[in-house]
Amino acid sequence: MVCTKKNLNSGLTITSRVIGSGNTLPILNNILFKTEEGRLKLSSTNLEMAINTWVGGKIEEEGEITVPARLINDYVNNIAADKITITSKNHTLHLEAEKAQTHIKGLSSEEFPLIPEIKEESFTKVDGKEFSHVIKEVTFAAAFSETQPEISGVLFSFDTDTLTLAATDRYRLAEGKVKLSTQVSAPKQVIVPARAVNELGRIMGSGVVEILLGDAQICFKAPDIELVSRLIEGQYPDYKQIIPGSYVTEAEVGRQALIQTLKAASLFASENNNIELDLNPQNKQIVIKSQSSQVGDSEIGLDAKISGQKNTIVFNFRYLLECLNSLPDENIILKIIGASSPAAIVPAGRENYLYIVMPIKI
Amino acid sequence: MVCTKKNLNSGLTITSRVIGSGNTLPILNNILFKTEEGRLKLSSTNLEMAINTWVGGKIEEEGEITVPARLINDYVNNIAADKITITSKNHTLHLEAEKAQTHIKGLSSEEFPLIPEIKEESFTKVDGKEFSHVIKEVTFAAAFSETQPEISGVLFSFDTDTLTLAATDRYRLAEGKVKLSTQVSAPKQVIVPARAVNELGRIMGSGVVEILLGDAQICFKAPDIELVSRLIEGQYPDYKQIIPGSYVTEAEVGRQALIQTLKAASLFASENNNIELDLNPQNKQIVIKSQSSQVGDSEIGLDAKISGQKNTIVFNFRYLLECLNSLPDENIILKIIGASSPAAIVPAGRENYLYIVMPIKI
Repeated sequence: MVCTKKNLNSGLTITSRVIGSGNTLPILNNILFKTEEGRLKLSSTNLEMAINTWVGGKIEEEGEITVPARLINDYVNNIAADKITITSKNHTLHLEAEKAQTHIKGLSSEEFPLIPEIKEESFTKVDGKEFSHVIKEVTFAAAFSETQPEISGVLFSFDTDTLTLAATDRYRLAEGKVKLSTQVSAPKQVIVPARAVNELGRIMGSGVVEILLGDAQICFKAPDIELVSRLIEGQYPDYKQIIPGSYVTEAEVGRQALIQTLKAASLFASENNNIELDLNPQNKQIVIKSQSSQVGDSEIGLDAKISGQKNTIVFNFRYLLECLNSLPDENIILKIIGASSPAAIVPAGRENYLYIVMPIKI
Repeated sequence: MVCTKKNLNSGLTITSRVIGSGNTLPILNNILFKTEEGRLKLSSTNLEMAINTWVGGKIEEEGEITVPARLINDYVNNIAADKITITSKNHTLHLEAEKAQTHIKGLSSEEFPLIPEIKEESFTKVDGKEFSHVIKEVTFAAAFSETQPEISGVLFSFDTDTLTLAATDRYRLAEGKVKLSTQVSAPKQVIVPARAVNELGRIMGSGVVEILLGDAQICFKAPDIELVSRLIEGQYPDYKQIIPGSYVTEAEVGRQALIQTLKAASLFASENNNIELDLNPQNKQIVIKSQSSQVGDSEIGLDAKISGQKNTIVFNFRYLLECLNSLPDENIILKIIGASSPAAIVPAGRENYLYIVMPIKI
């Protein structure tokens, strides 16, 4: 077949993302090339999730083969070409451009794992860009733990016209909402592996994403891209019960300034990651304190709009930084009850996101 | 003393560069703070080389102390401040800014290694920017080998109004020339450790660099920055004898296009790094070929201005890429005698640089 370098390149880049290092099965390092209904279909899988992309072009002869993902991706990236002609013969892929030609040894497409297809009709739709944003703000909070499979995933709760994503590792919780483009007829909850959700956030661009639900699989379809993932079985923890109903102190502060100050303070928290925040509504300051018997100590004031009572709380600074780094907002609001109750971070001026973090009890 | 955050920051960043990881002597992880003639002097050393920088400010009391380089560098980087007050007491450094204060535990300045001072007068001067460029283009070619100490350094040859830098690992050689701002009275050659030369290239900005020669040391002085390095004893190989007097084929080609093509071709050279270049003056093409019994093969043509005879040569692609990546020029000229003679790369339109590389004999 003949296609443009640009289209082939972008298909290969997306498909390669699933492929990790150290696969024990060599075929999992390969991308499946297959002609399908007048287009070239590229597929990759790690047995937990799979990505399909389609490249338009002129098919002269049907064919299929698998070749090493990294090799072909790097090669196409580095050759100067407008159009590329692809043929396959004897388990070898032949690429030909105006001034370049290559033979890449592959493996038979028969060895490639079957990627499940979901036969059900579309369940709902969502805007790709908004979906990506929420994914980024939520997924980092999942537990990457094999001993607790449910919380190694992200909970997708579909209800009427809203999709709520939630992730927790039992020390903190992130929850984000995105509007659905089409209402769902009945509420539905599924748990999707965090790694698949992460990839989804990276590859979904603007445009509508269609969501299909199978028995044990979920499929996200964007134009020319499709991600299929297995679902995680089990009962997701009832996280709603730990979200406080009200708070004692609230402080609005610049997100970047808080990140920088936490980074400076963290240099003196090497022994336990503990950082103390003193919120003082009188002098409108959050004072951030840290100390280490070996290294020294630090005390930094940060201007903030503070309402409610004077309050003190201690956090693992990593749990704050991960949330703050995932948000795009200029200002955030920190909401506190007291030294031994869960605290919240929300973006200022936006209601679709909530982060709950447990304090360190001293 | 009181100084600006900006000046302290830039002094710390430069001084920290000498400090590697895994120092067995804890004091070598520290920066020496010392008041000196109305300024703050910051010093670091790895016993082979040392960097001194000076920060202006208002000294109220003389003092000296050493503190961990990475810690203080990261801290000052992350606090919001215009002015910083620095005091030391009981082996603890106290930094105070408008809203931040910190105590950093240090080690006594008495434990800090003595940094040699060169008493001799200035030997010569050179423009910092031009010097940095030549350093970057030459130093990578040195052998980072402890068994051959002479070629683990860069040869500095001072002659009349020219400084020539040369580095080789016996498989390739880089030579660059830079004009001196003041003539030297007698020719002189010294060997400077490649790591010190590398750092020198990174920290020297615009402005004049003064060069001082001691018995076993060399010192490079820029405004507010000084790098002192030990010299390597021994006889540098007589590299001039391997530079060919004339060539059989010359090809001018775009540097970036050649880099990209070599990268694509290198994917099929995993077994031995060998890449074949066929230069053909008739069709004005360099054809770059590579193959691997396991992976496949590649053949890519590159437009070039070629004069002389048709010619073929095989290189280790890494030796070509290292040189091409170090140059800023748009076009380079590849000069070849034949398959078993040294070849040359020079920038098109510039005469102060030469790279010689041995071919792979098949």
